Amino acid sequence: MSDGSYAPTELTRLHRRPDRGSYDRALIHAILDEALVCHVGFVLEGRPHVIPTSILRQGEYVYIHGSPNNRMLSALADGAPACIEVTLVDSLVAGRSGFGCSMDYRSVVIYACGERVEGAEKPAIIDAIVQDLIPGHKVRPPKQKELDATLVLRFPLQEVSAKVRDRGVIDVEEDYARDDLWAGVIPLRITAGAPQDDARLKPGIATPDFAKRYKR
Amino acid sequence: MSDGSYAPTELTRLHRRPDRGSYDRALIHAILDEALVCHVGFVLEGRPHVIPTSILRQGEYVYIHGSPNNRMLSALADGAPACIEVTLVDSLVAGRSGFGCSMDYRSVVIYACGERVEGAEKPAIIDAIVQDLIPGHKVRPPKQKELDATLVLRFPLQEVSAKVRDRGVIDVEEDYARDDLWAGVIPLRITAGAPQDDARLKPGIATPDFAKRYKR
Repeated sequence: MSDGSYAPTELTRLHRRPDRGSYDRALIHAILDEALVCHVGFVLEGRPHVIPTSILRQGEYVYIHGSPNNRMLSALADGAPACIEVTLVDSLVAGRSGFGCSMDYRSVVIYACGERVEGAEKPAIIDAIVQDLIPGHKVRPPKQKELDATLVLRFPLQEVSAKVRDRGVIDVEEDYARDDLWAGVIPLRITAGAPQDDARLKPGIATPDFAKRYKR
Repeated sequence: MSDGSYAPTELTRLHRRPDRGSYDRALIHAILDEALVCHVGFVLEGRPHVIPTSILRQGEYVYIHGSPNNRMLSALADGAPACIEVTLVDSLVAGRSGFGCSMDYRSVVIYACGERVEGAEKPAIIDAIVQDLIPGHKVRPPKQKELDATLVLRFPLQEVSAKVRDRGVIDVEEDYARDDLWAGVIPLRITAGAPQDDARLKPGIATPDFAKRYKR
């Protein structure tokens, strides 16, 4: 494994469309950093389950968190193998056939087992999750009982791969001659609306700039 | 089971935060209809896998499609139990503590086994997928070899539940008294940029209005 990319493994090697696959570390980090949520798959009592949850990447780990009373999260804390998936949809691709319609996207899949984050690292990660979600937002320090009521798990970035489609319209050659069908790309992105102050906000507290100018 | 809602099952009954759970048919349909992609979890050789893919709901089924050469999709076609999950992030919730930071979201989880869609239904579903993704977009009819190269699977909406958080800031009571911390909600949505014509578009074909005014 070089510094610049992850080593493919049996689980992460792409069998189809290897041209869309990537193990590039910077690309994978960028996709994980842009994502608001991930989708965590795991097996419980022989059945597949998928839960959506917020995701933070820091160094060579991704972090998720939730309640220790969540039996799904507890199964992951106990080491159940997980498949963590992140997808960013960049555009709709309108081709000249149904077969030519698609999406441009960037996705990452991580295979890993989780481990509990404890001690001083735990409040640090919770703080980083807040800053990752809403950079600049100030909160009061956590109480011990809040830390106790939060399970933080980390998963190493080892078995990981990205898949990217960014080529827009790819039609069957003869379809390009058609003069009766439009084809193109409609870019999509997540945009923030005007922030809404909490109804119980104390008078005199202004809506901060980071909230007014939020960009993902 | 009434017409208006799905019956909870062992798999879909919410153990935690039942106040956020719903089996309401109209709500679940609306979330599935708004989603561009779903995240399909399943077990292959004892390991969990999650694949992102576009989703169409029609009546009491959801449909996904892909290549018959995709071994993951083939496992699903062969009846491997699936967990299909959809999440729409509606806003970032900036509370006065880390514990109070969250997201408002709408999500759906479906437990089901897939079955192949064949015959005349297959081109009809592929057409419906295009119209679901880009309403108004015209394409040429599919070729037989394209239909043969597309695996379409449907999953019944039976074991299904929604989870919704839409309450904005929910802080610890004493935190509302703080006059040094902002709290509020930053709404998020998917917006479409200006459509980009395919570079090989025939002269004289105008960018259609449905592309210019695309809304999700």
